[in-house]
Formats: sequence, C-alpha cells, structure tokens
Amino acid sequence: MINKLISNIKKTKAPIVVGLDPMLGYIPEHIKKAVYANLGETLEGAAEAVWQFNKEIIDKTYDLIPAVKPQIAMYEQFGLPGLMAFKKTVDYCKSKGLVVIGDIKRGDIGSTSAAYAAGHIGRVQVGDKSYAPFDEDFVTVNPYLGSDGVNPFIKVCEQEKRGLFILVKTSNPSSGEFQDRLVDGRPLYELVGEKVAEWGASCMGQDYSYVGAVVGATYPEMGKVLRKIMPKSYILVPGYGAQGGKGADLVHFFNEDGLGAIVNSSRGIIAAYKQEKYEKFGERNFADASREAVMDMVWDIRGALENR
Amino acid sequence: MINKLISNIKKTKAPIVVGLDPMLGYIPEHIKKAVYANLGETLEGAAEAVWQFNKEIIDKTYDLIPAVKPQIAMYEQFGLPGLMAFKKTVDYCKSKGLVVIGDIKRGDIGSTSAAYAAGHIGRVQVGDKSYAPFDEDFVTVNPYLGSDGVNPFIKVCEQEKRGLFILVKTSNPSSGEFQDRLVDGRPLYELVGEKVAEWGASCMGQDYSYVGAVVGATYPEMGKVLRKIMPKSYILVPGYGAQGGKGADLVHFFNEDGLGAIVNSSRGIIAAYKQEKYEKFGERNFADASREAVMDMVWDIRGALENR
Repeated sequence: MINKLISNIKKTKAPIVVGLDPMLGYIPEHIKKAVYANLGETLEGAAEAVWQFNKEIIDKTYDLIPAVKPQIAMYEQFGLPGLMAFKKTVDYCKSKGLVVIGDIKRGDIGSTSAAYAAGHIGRVQVGDKSYAPFDEDFVTVNPYLGSDGVNPFIKVCEQEKRGLFILVKTSNPSSGEFQDRLVDGRPLYELVGEKVAEWGASCMGQDYSYVGAVVGATYPEMGKVLRKIMPKSYILVPGYGAQGGKGADLVHFFNEDGLGAIVNSSRGIIAAYKQEKYEKFGERNFADASREAVMDMVWDIRGALENR
Repeated sequence: MINKLISNIKKTKAPIVVGLDPMLGYIPEHIKKAVYANLGETLEGAAEAVWQFNKEIIDKTYDLIPAVKPQIAMYEQFGLPGLMAFKKTVDYCKSKGLVVIGDIKRGDIGSTSAAYAAGHIGRVQVGDKSYAPFDEDFVTVNPYLGSDGVNPFIKVCEQEKRGLFILVKTSNPSSGEFQDRLVDGRPLYELVGEKVAEWGASCMGQDYSYVGAVVGATYPEMGKVLRKIMPKSYILVPGYGAQGGKGADLVHFFNEDGLGAIVNSSRGIIAAYKQEKYEKFGERNFADASREAVMDMVWDIRGALENR
C-alpha cells in the first residue's frame, strides 16, 4: 500500500492528505437543516450530515489528492451511527481511488493490538469465513506500550500489504511533556524514531517501508533530525495550516527525491469556506472552497520544495 | 463515579474487575453453533455469540463483583456489529449495578480527545439535543501526547462525574522499552505517575480522585513506588492470572486502608472453564466456572491483603 500511496502522490504531484475530521460546527447550515428535518436532531442525523458533508468534499477534491485521513474520534463521538458514517466514508474514498489513512491511534498489549489490527487493516476470522471490517489502507498507532503492542500491526501489514504511521512526535503544544524528555541525553522521540526505522526495515515496499511515522509540522527542527533517523519511513505530517505549520517549514520532512513525507490539513481544507480568504465561495459552495484550498496548499508545499 | 466504585468494592469486599475481552476461541461451541445456525458465520453472528457469552458470565458473577472492564478492541475487531455488542454489554452491566470501565486506551490532540471523551464518558451535542453515545463510567487513556491530550477527558469527568485510568506502566513484556527509560535518573513511568497525581488533584471524589492509573500486576516493585507517587489515585491493575501476576505480588498496589487498587482478570475468569482447575464444570457450564474463578481470585487477593 506504500507503493500505491507513492504512485498516487506522483500522479497528483501533491504530497498532501486531506483530514476528514468533520465537526458539526464545520458543516453548513443548509445540510444540517435538511438532514435534521428528515432524521431529527439525533445521532443518526448528525452522522448523515457528516457523511453528506464528506461526500461533497471528496467529490470536489479526489482528482487532486492522493489520500484522505479520516479521524475516527470525530465519528466515534456519535456512537454507532457515527461509526457507520466512518465506514461509508472509507469505502467511498477507496471507490474513488484514494488511499485511506485511518487516524485511529490505537495501541495495546499484544493480543489486543492484534484485534485492532484485524479490525482496521486486516481480516477477522468467523468460523470458516473471514471479513475486513473497517478496511482502511493505513492506520496510525500509539507506541507507548513498546514492540509487543506494535508487532501485531506489523504482522498484518505484511500479510495484507497495508501500512502504519506510528506516533513519534505529535503536533500538539504539550507533546514535549513526555516525548521530549531526555534519555541518555537524547529526546525520547528520537528513540521512538529509531524503533520505527527498525520495525520498518523488515517490511519494505519498493523504496519506502510499510511502517511510517507521525511527526508534527509544528516542530520542523525535530522533523529534520527524524528524517535522517528514519530514511526509509514515510512521514505523515499533521499540523499544517490551522495548527500553525507552513510549507517553508516542511521541506526538511522530505527526502532529496522529493518523497518521504505527506502533509495533512484538516480544518484548513474542509472548513476553508469559513476563512476570509475563501469566503467569496459562500457557505453553499463550501466544497469549491475546499478545492481551492487544496490547490493553494499544494502550491505552497511544491513551491517550498522547488526553492529549497 | 469513583465514589460508586469504592462503595461497590466495599459492598462486595472484592477489589477486582472482570475483563470482558471475549475472543471467539473462548466461547463454547454450543453457543457459536446455535448462533451461526441462525445468523451464519458473519460479523453479526460473531457479535451475537460474544453478547450471549458475556450475558451468561455477567448473570453468574454480577453479585460478587464491583465492576467490569470490556476491552473495546475485542468488539471493534468485528466492526459495527461488534461495537453494537460492546454497547449492549455496557448497558446490561450498568443495569446490573456494575461500574463499567471501558478499556479504550484513546488519547489524541486536544479537540480530538474531546470528541473521544464526549463519545465514551460524556455527552455529544446535536442541535438542541444531547446524547451519551457509549456511556461508560470510566475509560482508560493513553498519555503519550501529554496534558493537552488528557485534559479534555478530565474536563468531561468533572462535568459528568465519570473517571479515568491513565496508562502509567503497562503489564506487557515490552512495556519497559519506552516507559522504563531513565529521564534525569528516573524512569519515565514515574514522571507519568507524577502527572497523574497532579491531574487528579483537581478532580477529587470523597477519598480518591476521579483520575486513576493503570499499573501492571507483572511489575510489583514499580507498583510499590507508584502507589506512593499517586496516593489519591485508584490503580487499575491488569496482568493478574493469565499474564502471571499473583495475589501476594499485589499488596503494595493497595493503600493501608485496603483500598486504592482494583485488580483485573480477563481470560482467567471468562475462559476459566478451559483451565484444568475448573474443567469439572464442563463447557456448557462455563459461567459457573467463571463464578468459581471469581471467588478464588477474591480469596487470593483478600488473603494476601490480610496477611501483609
């Protein structure tokens, strides 16, 4: 799946991923009004509004982008109807040729991680039959429990040709509280990065490993160091746009081949119509605003890469 | 909810929690056969088998125990039908007066953690209405992202009187890979434990905080140290039984008041009928074997506490 991700990136010339993290506050009133008229202000109504919002954004952007990253929490908050909308979103994006990165940040002891891996990127056995319940292409994984929490995910990646992005240095302000603590004079995130390189070595695609890393756009200097520690790992870079990262900050996340990183923007794309810059589109044409925001983001990052 | 947990523990004299982590391999053939005859070897069939298995164990043990801990991965692996069985299990346990600890190990950046908190222990707003989608009493939280990943959970705890158990030192063999790394001469898990004490101070029940910690039974010496670092935090102790922990190892997880810890056993209880010790019950009476295993576990832990 890393090979498909890279081929999609080369085809679109867009090393970006759109974060499908719909909050109800991002969804235009006309969608919510119509859906609630039908289903009421219910969990089912919220989930249907989320799905309709996603679908319109996907329809207006899928030809420009290689991948999407739905954040499962934004669906899980609406319970089972929300998770149905998550699944529908995953399936629809895949039908459009997009690579789907499930931002699930799971991670547990061995047998439990194996269950998460089966449910999200693998197959689960029921008697003589097997099923791929959520069927994402990649998932994000939390490494706090160490190798035996990560290995079951890697095993499934090998079997099913799926991929992982393991949290190394997250984009949020307090990520340093534990991740930056010095161990033998070096920050913990570097040790996690070394482990990612080690885990990934056994699981190579053509040029890059199936095991990637998450490193926040908000920490470009750390990205530079981590890029060298994990040369064969794709880096998923959250924190662009709304969280403060800019294209010029991101060049060191990429390798010399122009590959090796994929930059996520969520709110900056899906709620673009709320920004002054895109308000000319109006709320009804929110997905056109998203399309323009995608083009601007690609231009910003490609420009920075060409000028480095 | 910490007050209710403690009151349930005092009432049952059982500082234990039954881990409802059903693997299909644990479920007796007669249940699977009957369910598959009806629903086929499908995700729906697997989920129904899980639910019937859980219900029988709950019916045979609820009067002896204060709490249950369903591990959501074991349900999530069966996709949406699996998560329906999770929800059904949560609701049924609550109807029996049990405290429900959702072992979800979520944790993300602020706005995303807020969505998880709303979905699992809080309420989510849809227009003018609000809902409690999964409605557990406690959840487990992964702290790797630091305070701003944990604070949204704490905020919901305060509003809704729910509780947390934050991963400090997990029970698995490789937990030391990152958690034991020395920071200024002290292991990382101690720093996380200090943070738990700090987070918990603002969120007190009667004698204990709403913010507890997870510390594995497999690391009793570390439990002793962490008990002192977090005197007001309840410790959820996984790893008893199948993972290797014994009652005598666990006394230092408790405070002098005999409170402060709750020991989890999953496989050792729910699949007790597969052990030589309980094979006299036979597969059909698996839940009676679970009941006896609960009584043995309580006896082991209470005995160790009385003899310390």
